[in-house]
Amino acid sequence: MFENTERTELSALGEFGLISHLSKHFTSKNESTVLGIGDDAAIVKLGNEMMAISTDSYIEGVHFDLMFHPLKHLGYKAVAATVSDICAMNAIPTQILVAIGLSNRFSLEAVEELYEGMRLACEKYNIDLIGGDTSSSRSGLVLNLTAMGRVEESKLTLRKGAQVNDLLVVTGDLGGAYMGLQILEREKKVFIEHPKMQPDLETYDYIVGRQLKAEARVDVIQLLDDLKIIPTSMMDVSDGVASELFHLGQASGVGFDIYEEKLPIDPQTIDAALEFDLNPSIMALNGGEDYELLFTIKQEDFDKIKNNPDFTVIGHATDMVNIYRLNTKAGNSFEIKAQGWEHFSSDNK
Amino acid sequence: MFENTERTELSALGEFGLISHLSKHFTSKNESTVLGIGDDAAIVKLGNEMMAISTDSYIEGVHFDLMFHPLKHLGYKAVAATVSDICAMNAIPTQILVAIGLSNRFSLEAVEELYEGMRLACEKYNIDLIGGDTSSSRSGLVLNLTAMGRVEESKLTLRKGAQVNDLLVVTGDLGGAYMGLQILEREKKVFIEHPKMQPDLETYDYIVGRQLKAEARVDVIQLLDDLKIIPTSMMDVSDGVASELFHLGQASGVGFDIYEEKLPIDPQTIDAALEFDLNPSIMALNGGEDYELLFTIKQEDFDKIKNNPDFTVIGHATDMVNIYRLNTKAGNSFEIKAQGWEHFSSDNK
Repeated sequence: MFENTERTELSALGEFGLISHLSKHFTSKNESTVLGIGDDAAIVKLGNEMMAISTDSYIEGVHFDLMFHPLKHLGYKAVAATVSDICAMNAIPTQILVAIGLSNRFSLEAVEELYEGMRLACEKYNIDLIGGDTSSSRSGLVLNLTAMGRVEESKLTLRKGAQVNDLLVVTGDLGGAYMGLQILEREKKVFIEHPKMQPDLETYDYIVGRQLKAEARVDVIQLLDDLKIIPTSMMDVSDGVASELFHLGQASGVGFDIYEEKLPIDPQTIDAALEFDLNPSIMALNGGEDYELLFTIKQEDFDKIKNNPDFTVIGHATDMVNIYRLNTKAGNSFEIKAQGWEHFSSDNK
Repeated sequence: MFENTERTELSALGEFGLISHLSKHFTSKNESTVLGIGDDAAIVKLGNEMMAISTDSYIEGVHFDLMFHPLKHLGYKAVAATVSDICAMNAIPTQILVAIGLSNRFSLEAVEELYEGMRLACEKYNIDLIGGDTSSSRSGLVLNLTAMGRVEESKLTLRKGAQVNDLLVVTGDLGGAYMGLQILEREKKVFIEHPKMQPDLETYDYIVGRQLKAEARVDVIQLLDDLKIIPTSMMDVSDGVASELFHLGQASGVGFDIYEEKLPIDPQTIDAALEFDLNPSIMALNGGEDYELLFTIKQEDFDKIKNNPDFTVIGHATDMVNIYRLNTKAGNSFEIKAQGWEHFSSDNK
């Protein structure tokens, strides 16, 4: 049945291209649909309230490797990553639904570990598990999570909305989850070749933790509310800042100038990058899965955030539409090309 | 990492047991969570409005066989089956989110076919596709759909609520989708052994259609509203009436008496069952995937439905808690044992 005369490989479009290509023939018919595909989450309006909703799949061998992702951590991370999309709308996450496909190599005890991780994340983020679906899978673990959250209409923050001269802010630090993954993959190789050697993970405990136990920045959404800041645009850093910059810029019709010296990078991320002969700044820009928030604020809001070590201003929006420039420590200026983690590409993560 | 000393096979619990076992340690913390796991859909309250939400996975080789499920039909059916859970709460479906995992054997044209089927279903049911996630999959097609719908608080219908002497009503006819699947599987075997033979599907076009192109009974939800009927309990027939009876009975604390002669069965279902040497009534009770609605109404509502050929009263609720009796045409009475389609069981569908 796949013997069509035409055959276009999925890799020709990449993940983002594929979603927008496939959804372009769908039109919205319900008044309650405020925002459909194209942002971190969709928005549905009920009465006077808005609900953000987003769905994500996590497939064994594609998104995670059970050789170094313990099931409890995996459960926690899946919740965090899904909830992160709700935060990216400036919404407070409230509920989650979990569908799971399992092959018979999983015992009940193994699945309990996975759910214990999800339960811990639900406790941490104060969200309720309200839906479940379980089924068999022919090949390993398939997880799908759908998260929901509430946002007041006046606080709703989209990718669209950044204005020229707005400050570009990122939370936490960057590139850690990606370098943590490099460490884990190296130790896996060592383990396969020398099963009796103990993995050396202690030196890099922070970045390994960034990979294995991601956190959604629900705390930042609360903090922004306390500080009375409504970002002009926002998204979460799941595919790397370079890729997210493009999304914010394209949606808002602006460009961005960012400064290498401002990029928040943990010392362990720097050490690991150097050990792998990689440029730490490039890792900070292109590493995925940090689940930090990247947003723009009006300049007058700067005073509200300047003393908070969790917020770093890394640049500003410019009127050079779709031009994203990295100003290096050495005083050079480079145009950034998207290098996010598009699935279906030849160097699939 | 699966070398636990304890190892309980998932098949020991079955799908329903697994969901309730895994979710029992989760507690609800948000006021907006009206109903969590355990019904056809969860209920979230926003302001004065209620939203039903449900998630379902469809995994290649488990839920469908691409050898006889054309992708366009599969897309349509996945939407219908997910939307059916929303209908089962007496809610009007409004939005859907789709996450898809694809192996590289799928071309863009193949995926377009799948989405065209989903688009047709969205048109038919007047629902909006609002969320998307695509990723690679190592083994075939993995679909996850999350559907949402709206329901007035006074019309919300749960599995719980049936009272003794309420009438048990089913829409449409039963067992067709299951017998359609038997026909398709037989023709697949013939095709594998004799690739030049044309499959004989015309004789059974209706039941093959029931399998390949399921419909959600959104029309029935509208009709119940027009007739001013609020069922006392309801669920959709995805695993077979026998299995659903147990759910309604357990949730409501009643038993059911049903009458073999009342079971609505299409002549094609009867013919196919007899050809396979199967009892048509057993097929009607145990066949899954009909996606009809099974509900209870107060006796005084009978006059409102009695002339509608789409509604069939097949029995009534009794005070014999958890006893489900089939009264046969021959005048005998048998206790029905659950024979639904639990995944992880030894005779997995």
